[in-house]
Amino acid sequence: MRATTIHAARDIRFTEVPDPSITEPTDAVVRVLAGCVCGSDLWNYRGENEITPGATIGHECIGEVVEIGADVRDFKVGDHVVVPFCHSDNTCPHCRAGFQSACVHGGFTVSGQGELARVTQADGSLVRVEGGINASNRAALLTLSDVMPTGWHAAVSAGVRPGATVVVVGDGAVGLCGVLAASTMGAEKIIALSRHESRQKIARVFGATHVVAERGKEANEIVKEITSGVGADAVLECVGTDAAIQTAFAVARPGSTVGFVGVPHGVELPVRRMFQKNVGLRGGMAPVRAYLPDLLRRVEAGELDPSPVFDMILPMDQVAEGYAAMDERRAVKVLLEP
Amino acid sequence: MRATTIHAARDIRFTEVPDPSITEPTDAVVRVLAGCVCGSDLWNYRGENEITPGATIGHECIGEVVEIGADVRDFKVGDHVVVPFCHSDNTCPHCRAGFQSACVHGGFTVSGQGELARVTQADGSLVRVEGGINASNRAALLTLSDVMPTGWHAAVSAGVRPGATVVVVGDGAVGLCGVLAASTMGAEKIIALSRHESRQKIARVFGATHVVAERGKEANEIVKEITSGVGADAVLECVGTDAAIQTAFAVARPGSTVGFVGVPHGVELPVRRMFQKNVGLRGGMAPVRAYLPDLLRRVEAGELDPSPVFDMILPMDQVAEGYAAMDERRAVKVLLEP
Repeated sequence: MRATTIHAARDIRFTEVPDPSITEPTDAVVRVLAGCVCGSDLWNYRGENEITPGATIGHECIGEVVEIGADVRDFKVGDHVVVPFCHSDNTCPHCRAGFQSACVHGGFTVSGQGELARVTQADGSLVRVEGGINASNRAALLTLSDVMPTGWHAAVSAGVRPGATVVVVGDGAVGLCGVLAASTMGAEKIIALSRHESRQKIARVFGATHVVAERGKEANEIVKEITSGVGADAVLECVGTDAAIQTAFAVARPGSTVGFVGVPHGVELPVRRMFQKNVGLRGGMAPVRAYLPDLLRRVEAGELDPSPVFDMILPMDQVAEGYAAMDERRAVKVLLEP
Repeated sequence: MRATTIHAARDIRFTEVPDPSITEPTDAVVRVLAGCVCGSDLWNYRGENEITPGATIGHECIGEVVEIGADVRDFKVGDHVVVPFCHSDNTCPHCRAGFQSACVHGGFTVSGQGELARVTQADGSLVRVEGGINASNRAALLTLSDVMPTGWHAAVSAGVRPGATVVVVGDGAVGLCGVLAASTMGAEKIIALSRHESRQKIARVFGATHVVAERGKEANEIVKEITSGVGADAVLECVGTDAAIQTAFAVARPGSTVGFVGVPHGVELPVRRMFQKNVGLRGGMAPVRAYLPDLLRRVEAGELDPSPVFDMILPMDQVAEGYAAMDERRAVKVLLEP
């Protein structure tokens, strides 16, 4: 098959690689109907993570089951499915506690930007789209593979409640989905920190009541003003840099929680401030599977539409341009079609 | 009056100092009926915190109101009261959210190991002991000034629930109160990490079902075994050192929370592990006033007895020996009587 491979920093190719196959009886292989580029892929693209030259890349996709292992009971060839980026048996103690991203039989999608993807623990991981995937629902469904549940996880981790004042740090696709999650959960004031006009617009569509373009201390002051000096009831940290973390803790009110879903890079947590102000930190790799049934129902019912995070669609063989567009902030998130 | 003063590392004296007085109309002055030494005082005693030579020290006490400011409405001279170590107006947004330790009009007891103590924001801070303080209830009541609500806060912050498996890191008085809090909240397994026989005994009395004397990796392995490889549902970190924090995160199951109340000293939070395992951190300076009414009711009803944390009683003028005994671990916690 053909799939996206990474060879060095800024060297993304769409090349011929071996087809994924059933290696465990609990595996399935899915034909990718849509994939996309994740903000976290950019860490690799920019050379900030170690990579294996020539390895496939891409962990978000939706597709059609084309092959199943002998032990797969709940899915059959032809099923249309959402593939969580992290796989799970959905029966181990961590899965039962709602933390499928820590499954003892965990795995990851590794060729979601390719023609085929292997899903380990198919029965525990996949969620069927009963009505099928089509041109009109694919974008919204594709967000359920990672970005929307990750924004949702930030809001859950931060303890967003109806009526709350929420700050979202980060205007990437995850941050925007965090805004959408907070508004879906009934937050009253949602303050999005965003400097980019196109992203500000999506934030407003998703429910942001305030947009703050300033950064650092200036942003803190403005949030303080909006919150009458109190600070935010919940803060969603959707970037992963040290600057984003420091901002998150600076705007959080005493007793609140920062929900973090940006993969931390060079972060030093302000432990003294956390202690003095009783500001907690929760979050991490999103247990996508835990939220999927509920989020899928909301999408199918038309209550939730995260699809505006995709502002560029490319054929999969132009994936390199997709990475470049996201890296240069010409696109928020790029959908790749076969 | 006479009060405890600190002059340098390991130089504790009981000396003549000016009487505290009403400086704001919301103040009260309390005659100390019992005070004590806190584990956090030992940071100063050991020279690990900056001190002002000659300053009074001691933030835990119970007593009798002897003077009130013009604006104090709810207390009168002669009332017996528990004095939270951190004072609060109990009306600001942070107080109303249950985080009185972040009150915008906050203050601290600074001569709790002396004859008299000034309490700022008396109406918001103090809680009356209707039946009065006497020789038989003073030890239990004194714990409500700091150590018991702090252990309670660790358990609340860690999200202890009925049936939970809880690990308590630290066998000082706070850690022991954490054990007592967890058992009062209905935890099923309570694993106390303790190397000292006398403290292990108190931990057992307070409800510990397992005592682990090992440290570091060995302790982690034993907790893993006790929890069938899953890890703890909630971890109470009651020390504040980096070693204690690392142990706390090592034994926490994915999706759980470390509740921390040990003042952090030289701590580096394992942010990557926290992210990968979705282990949160919550806690800090305990909002004593938030828990006081409930804890006082439990103590008065005989449901809760934290008094065994005091294993040494000294007249206040022998306070230096009290510090030495706690520093050398000859005593868990020292009660000082006038």
